[in-house]
Amino acid sequence: MRSFVGYVRVGFVLTFAWAFLLRVHASAQPDPLPSWNDGAAKTAIVEFVRATTDSAGPKFVPPAERIATFDQDGTLWVEHPMYAQVVYCLERVPAVVEAKPELATVEPFKTVLSGDRAALAKLSMDDLFEILAATLTGMSVEEFKAQAQAWLGTARDPRWKRPYTELTYLPMQEVLKYLRANDYKTYIVTGGGQDFVRVYAEAVYGIPPEQVVGTAGGTTYGYDASGRPVLTKEPKLLLNDDKAGKPEGIHLMIGRHPRAAFGNSDGDRQMLEYTTAGDGARLAMLVLHDDATREYAYGPARGLPNSKVGTFTAALADEATKKGWTVISMKKDWKRVFSFEP
Amino acid sequence: MRSFVGYVRVGFVLTFAWAFLLRVHASAQPDPLPSWNDGAAKTAIVEFVRATTDSAGPKFVPPAERIATFDQDGTLWVEHPMYAQVVYCLERVPAVVEAKPELATVEPFKTVLSGDRAALAKLSMDDLFEILAATLTGMSVEEFKAQAQAWLGTARDPRWKRPYTELTYLPMQEVLKYLRANDYKTYIVTGGGQDFVRVYAEAVYGIPPEQVVGTAGGTTYGYDASGRPVLTKEPKLLLNDDKAGKPEGIHLMIGRHPRAAFGNSDGDRQMLEYTTAGDGARLAMLVLHDDATREYAYGPARGLPNSKVGTFTAALADEATKKGWTVISMKKDWKRVFSFEP
Repeated sequence: MRSFVGYVRVGFVLTFAWAFLLRVHASAQPDPLPSWNDGAAKTAIVEFVRATTDSAGPKFVPPAERIATFDQDGTLWVEHPMYAQVVYCLERVPAVVEAKPELATVEPFKTVLSGDRAALAKLSMDDLFEILAATLTGMSVEEFKAQAQAWLGTARDPRWKRPYTELTYLPMQEVLKYLRANDYKTYIVTGGGQDFVRVYAEAVYGIPPEQVVGTAGGTTYGYDASGRPVLTKEPKLLLNDDKAGKPEGIHLMIGRHPRAAFGNSDGDRQMLEYTTAGDGARLAMLVLHDDATREYAYGPARGLPNSKVGTFTAALADEATKKGWTVISMKKDWKRVFSFEP
Repeated sequence: MRSFVGYVRVGFVLTFAWAFLLRVHASAQPDPLPSWNDGAAKTAIVEFVRATTDSAGPKFVPPAERIATFDQDGTLWVEHPMYAQVVYCLERVPAVVEAKPELATVEPFKTVLSGDRAALAKLSMDDLFEILAATLTGMSVEEFKAQAQAWLGTARDPRWKRPYTELTYLPMQEVLKYLRANDYKTYIVTGGGQDFVRVYAEAVYGIPPEQVVGTAGGTTYGYDASGRPVLTKEPKLLLNDDKAGKPEGIHLMIGRHPRAAFGNSDGDRQMLEYTTAGDGARLAMLVLHDDATREYAYGPARGLPNSKVGTFTAALADEATKKGWTVISMKKDWKRVFSFEP
């Protein structure tokens, strides 16, 4: 008996020693979200990850079902004063006209070439679609990739004088890494062009091409002069991955409800509704651009200035309140916005 | 000097000891493809995996780029006498007519309900599309999943009297597992319905919904009576994932060239061309159904009987020879076809 009691005691001592060591170890773990201030937003993320990865808890999510989707423009990187891809398309026009000189005197190309900002601002949606079609289609998938890559290497954002690919939000980069470290598959679900975002998503966010869902056009399979297979980008819209198109795109490309979704505008509303429609733990968050000093301030929710790019309406803010979606205040929740900040 | 030489000697001895131990260890590894007979096909698979995972070798492929695509019908499971999904659609007709009794007297539903095999065989492609539209669209994504799951649970293949989901080829299941064990992401790229195959792909092949690329229709996002988000399946074709549609679908859903592709019919030709178009090590394989005893025999390649389902033409066999694609002879290369064989 004594020796048994002795073993039990040793067992107890060891258990306590382990518990102590584990606690010390746990508290010594580096903060996975160091660019976030303490508050409801940070707590929501950490608590969601804790609950869904606790295999003994009621909210456990098997690793295979850990899907998290992120809008890109305005959620992972800067979208003001204009989406980077629209800037790309406009700046690509001279090269398109060089290849087809007859376009130089035809609208809307003539206006784009003029550089007249007032005239540019008046272009219609049809004009814009014509520019998108001319700059995003008609070439092979590989040619497009090379063109976009070359532009990304030289283009600079007008305010920060940096490549667009550096204008990602450090706190969101931390969320991506934190979720992946906890076996979440992170997807981009963007209204932007799927092929455009795929060009840099892996280098910039660690998100591979197969995890980029975006507005997508058809391609046509054929062969080049040497008989090599070529996919040509066609001006045929397959998926308009915005608003209701986001859950439709998620079903097409992923085939299951995400467990977590992050957005920043009315274009993300349906994705958040769809994400939170299922059972169990769900996380829905919206980035509010309320920091004119460090980034931009626009809404019109909460009395912020209106904006055509990345509109966050009062109706979206109301739905967020009603459904328990967390609004991230850039100003209050983010210690740093960009990695290049001092 | 002596002590240096001594160290070198000890180093040599240790190196040889390690090499010996590693070789013993390697030869003691279980065969990853036990249902394959030794031969060119098995060697091609094993050599491809060895070469692309050897980080010191010239053919190394980084894990992120390890993508392998598999046709389903006829490549992973039995497609004769008729694709399982077509059987599903035909057997689903009574339920559709029960919900819409006015269809009972309308063609092609009337013929399907009659069970008259001769009349059924004469249905046109337009008739078939009408049946597909009536049985695969018009319901929510969840309702469809429940309907397909219920059918798969009760339907039996006429020859083996087993659920269709048991009619998978054991040697191909081994290839899937072997590739995944070597960090390949395995995808199904099927002419069948993406949503249909997703219902069972995870349970049957270990392939999650996001890795099933198939013929896909559009969905429409909306809300049910309680305000819950619902995606309704629409009779609008987004992707016809067959022939040229396979590389187009691979670009849409994966965004990069596969490194390995497996097919069995003319519908897979373009996928194999696309897979082998890139640099570095590539694996392209075609299953030839030449075993009427254990499964079926059809071509018409190599003098096998012609077939409308899963046609393997002489032209495809010629292209395979010319391009070094490996043809898998079911009869010669597979020790066992099904796991339920004695």
